Amino acid sequence: MKRPRVTVVAALAGLAVASIAYAADPLPSWNDGAAKRSVLQFVTRVTQEGGLNYVLPAQRIAAFDNDGTLWAEQPLYFQFLFMLDRVKALAPQHPEWKTQEPFAALLRGDAKAALAGGERALGQLAMATHAGTTTEEFEKIVSDWVATARHPQTGRLLTEMVYQPMLELLAYLRANGFKTFIVSGGGIEFMRPWTEKVYGIPPEQVIGSSIKTKFELRDGKPALVRLPELNFMDDGPGKPAGIQMHVGRRPIAAFGNSDGDLPMLQWTAGGDGARLCLYVHHTDAEREWAYDRQSSIGRLDKGLDEALAKGWTVVDMKNDWKIIYPAQR
Amino acid sequence: MKRPRVTVVAALAGLAVASIAYAADPLPSWNDGAAKRSVLQFVTRVTQEGGLNYVLPAQRIAAFDNDGTLWAEQPLYFQFLFMLDRVKALAPQHPEWKTQEPFAALLRGDAKAALAGGERALGQLAMATHAGTTTEEFEKIVSDWVATARHPQTGRLLTEMVYQPMLELLAYLRANGFKTFIVSGGGIEFMRPWTEKVYGIPPEQVIGSSIKTKFELRDGKPALVRLPELNFMDDGPGKPAGIQMHVGRRPIAAFGNSDGDLPMLQWTAGGDGARLCLYVHHTDAEREWAYDRQSSIGRLDKGLDEALAKGWTVVDMKNDWKIIYPAQR
Repeated sequence: MKRPRVTVVAALAGLAVASIAYAADPLPSWNDGAAKRSVLQFVTRVTQEGGLNYVLPAQRIAAFDNDGTLWAEQPLYFQFLFMLDRVKALAPQHPEWKTQEPFAALLRGDAKAALAGGERALGQLAMATHAGTTTEEFEKIVSDWVATARHPQTGRLLTEMVYQPMLELLAYLRANGFKTFIVSGGGIEFMRPWTEKVYGIPPEQVIGSSIKTKFELRDGKPALVRLPELNFMDDGPGKPAGIQMHVGRRPIAAFGNSDGDLPMLQWTAGGDGARLCLYVHHTDAEREWAYDRQSSIGRLDKGLDEALAKGWTVVDMKNDWKIIYPAQR
Repeated sequence: MKRPRVTVVAALAGLAVASIAYAADPLPSWNDGAAKRSVLQFVTRVTQEGGLNYVLPAQRIAAFDNDGTLWAEQPLYFQFLFMLDRVKALAPQHPEWKTQEPFAALLRGDAKAALAGGERALGQLAMATHAGTTTEEFEKIVSDWVATARHPQTGRLLTEMVYQPMLELLAYLRANGFKTFIVSGGGIEFMRPWTEKVYGIPPEQVIGSSIKTKFELRDGKPALVRLPELNFMDDGPGKPAGIQMHVGRRPIAAFGNSDGDLPMLQWTAGGDGARLCLYVHHTDAEREWAYDRQSSIGRLDKGLDEALAKGWTVVDMKNDWKIIYPAQR
């Protein structure tokens, strides 16, 4: 009579152990390998009280690039999709765009021709679609757009093209007392309306590129109006500057995927004590995209060399990640 | 036999009630009056779950001016004292300052003559004393200075010339789920080295004026170098713009003492739901200073009119505060 009961108890105990073991893997979508190991080891080292590499919780700052690091960026930055949709939505109010480049080309559906004008054309498109509203109006425009915007190739909502392994990493770091920041070349006010819901990152922990704003009283009601003038470019050497401006502390961990993230990783690596510098390397042409040294979007060339030379962590997307995107609901 | 026991129980219960009542006054340095009452009522309203004015913790953003609101600002801004000391410390490296205004006047001890050059002179002094170092060097310079800098009239450490009633207010708001931010015309990197220790406000919750920085690799070691070029002026209409840039949400409570804070208070008042806009009115010539409409430092004129017209909270320092500064250790 006793044997079966013991078995039941043992089986239940086994289940409990299994469930603990499962809970103890904070990165279930990461294959066991060097990348996962380096993340786990780093977090263990900086959180071990009394240990040589212990870091006070207040100083556990982690900085994440967004495009290509937290969500996809191919075949073009998602904010560019927003810009295209915005030009179409605003076209009725701008009959002159029918003949005025780069707008005319875009409205004909020829994005390539529109962008042939280089940075100047991009600047014109960006200002026409990002300025001219109040901050609150712009927040609503972005919120409404991102609620339904889908990827031109996968058909997924853009907010579902975030990397499940990185969502786990964000949650794991926060569970270990880290404050997680986005540090992106993308627009700060383009990201804030959805980063809290999608990444658990509140607006005050989002750093990005920006245009200037102007405080006005409109019929006695205060407003911040978005001006067609660049305020800050949070890319390349702008990233460490942006971090200093917003955080005022040097991160101990930084995550990127392109040469534009290199100064942020260098700045992070340059501090004392344990550091985690990680590059996401896009190596998965089947489940995502494969690109690095030759890509015009998210080029990873000098950064890859430096990562290899300095022994930074490089995630091989194809081999290190079990899945790419969260399961669709 | 039972009576005494009941008495003991009642007495113990009484003690418990008394101790709760004591703990329940979160603002012991505030005299009972309209100002204290409006603060307590506001916090009760926005934290009462299910209440009409309930505000989610993530949206409980409180913005505090610094000079004249959290610490004193007479007879001149404390950052100006830093500038004076810094000119003296740097003078040996700048023999040309002996004949070059505004430096020459300052080095003769004639601050008034130095400032006769107006904004241009002030800009020259600010850049000469705030730029040219790395961010880390500047942090150390400020930390070393503030550790010993004393007020020219009271002889107190400047960091002890903070307002005890405002320290209680900061702690009270944080205990009720608020995130407290400094939003000051003062230099962001001049404040960060000491705000966490003095106010409990970490560097990432400090917003202030800034100069530009440049990312450099010096012998392979990354550095952010402070440039003699204004980046952002966090005063007047700059305050709501600075809040939007750093926080990305509109505060529900704002605290200031001068016309330079008025746009921040207007911006705060302009949102929906319960709002707390509070002016500290310097009315205490004996324990602190008395000044408002005519003062060149911390002028409160239009702001006072608007506060009275709109029913904002105005702290009468002399009558509303039991003590001004924390007890000296």
